[in-house]
Amino acid sequence: MKSSPGAPIGIFDSGIGGLTVVKSVMQALPNESIVYFGDTARVPYGIKSAETVKEYALQITDFLLRKRVKMILIACNTVAASARNAIEHKSGSVPVLDVISAGAQAAAALRHEHNMIGVIGTLATVGSGAYEDALKQQNPSLSVFSKACPMLVPLAEEGWIDNEVARATLDIYLRDFTHTRFDGLILGCTHYPLFRDQIMAYFNNPNLQIVDSADAIAAMAAEYLDNARLLNSAPDQTTFSCYVSDKPQRFQALAERFLGKNINRVEVVNMP
Amino acid sequence: MKSSPGAPIGIFDSGIGGLTVVKSVMQALPNESIVYFGDTARVPYGIKSAETVKEYALQITDFLLRKRVKMILIACNTVAASARNAIEHKSGSVPVLDVISAGAQAAAALRHEHNMIGVIGTLATVGSGAYEDALKQQNPSLSVFSKACPMLVPLAEEGWIDNEVARATLDIYLRDFTHTRFDGLILGCTHYPLFRDQIMAYFNNPNLQIVDSADAIAAMAAEYLDNARLLNSAPDQTTFSCYVSDKPQRFQALAERFLGKNINRVEVVNMP
Repeated sequence: MKSSPGAPIGIFDSGIGGLTVVKSVMQALPNESIVYFGDTARVPYGIKSAETVKEYALQITDFLLRKRVKMILIACNTVAASARNAIEHKSGSVPVLDVISAGAQAAAALRHEHNMIGVIGTLATVGSGAYEDALKQQNPSLSVFSKACPMLVPLAEEGWIDNEVARATLDIYLRDFTHTRFDGLILGCTHYPLFRDQIMAYFNNPNLQIVDSADAIAAMAAEYLDNARLLNSAPDQTTFSCYVSDKPQRFQALAERFLGKNINRVEVVNMP
Repeated sequence: MKSSPGAPIGIFDSGIGGLTVVKSVMQALPNESIVYFGDTARVPYGIKSAETVKEYALQITDFLLRKRVKMILIACNTVAASARNAIEHKSGSVPVLDVISAGAQAAAALRHEHNMIGVIGTLATVGSGAYEDALKQQNPSLSVFSKACPMLVPLAEEGWIDNEVARATLDIYLRDFTHTRFDGLILGCTHYPLFRDQIMAYFNNPNLQIVDSADAIAAMAAEYLDNARLLNSAPDQTTFSCYVSDKPQRFQALAERFLGKNINRVEVVNMP
């Protein structure tokens, strides 16, 4: 199946955190249509086995291919760590980008003094070592110092970004980084960009380079589409279609928090 | 299908939090065999729609009935709130008890001065009003003051029970209760018994009556089986079978935290 420039970009995540990627893509590529799928009935993926994550990701890939997307963006770090190859195999000629490769590429392009990159992510992402692998592919002399921060997702969903609980949590997770020399910190989970200001405040270092993998994958997608002559040439007809596998409690408030604006219409699609 | 005294008790939850109910049942009924199912591939239920929760709960009920259990204990507050009737309809002559009815019955039996019961639980449980309904069935003059505490589950799973983050979180959630006169507080989620000591410390009131719904359902099950002459008469052959739909990260550490001891063998069962 040949990709067509007028086709939408497919973006998916285990839940609604991937809307931070949609937000970045809308900023980088305002003339593109987007189909988003959030697997809200089966979120979170970060605590599940790699086999289960792969199975779910392939079902979603099928769904996006039926929507005739011209490109698939894996907005979920856990999926990127466990299922990237399987998705690429299934998608055939439709290109696949993922937040881990994009974040690693952006981190490798930073100013380097210590050849050390910090990574924070879910248990599954950090446990997989996927950022380490991706960074070493970019530059074999880079090392990684990583820390799983499982409380940050529920904090973001509770809307506790800048209260005492959030600060005490960041203090526990980020403490070890203060004893380490590193050149940049990758926010290796779609929810973490919400804590960007608090993380900057914690380190209190204006030179700290933060890699937001949502911005990184949006920039990578723009470059790819431009090179492949796949940019949309009929920008007056762009659409944003949002699908979820379940309509969770407080969906609208959460979606707005991640996307930065309201979603008018959401369709619920049953997964197998 | 007629229940047999030698058959096991079936207990299920959306995840492994229901092992707190297993622990209470093992203490109250040491001579009974138990089949536990934790739907770890699809946890958490607390953020999902009632329809999805009901569908999952009926699949698990099928599984337990195929294991020929003599009784089903719904260890998940979210399931009890959304799917109790549907499960009872499917289970036929096999009796069904649930943590909400059990907790409400225990709370109604407390000393009452203010006719007000406090409830903490997940968003889904609190949003459903199920404790209020169950308490009013017990005693129409009882009122309920409830608060959703979504951060307590991830805190328990991170093992942060008694640190600064846990204390700051409890302070936010429990603050409103300090302005309210109530006779007892129901811990309306299987994870919450882990915070029992911290909650007692927060209120700093030795007369505070706490209803642990795990203990309540275990006592109710013991009474029911005794009355129905269904207590196991061959106690030297008791077994504990533990099934999950996915083997999550850090499973053993988590299971031990909730059950209070090691689980030697866990079987993974694929749900549809």
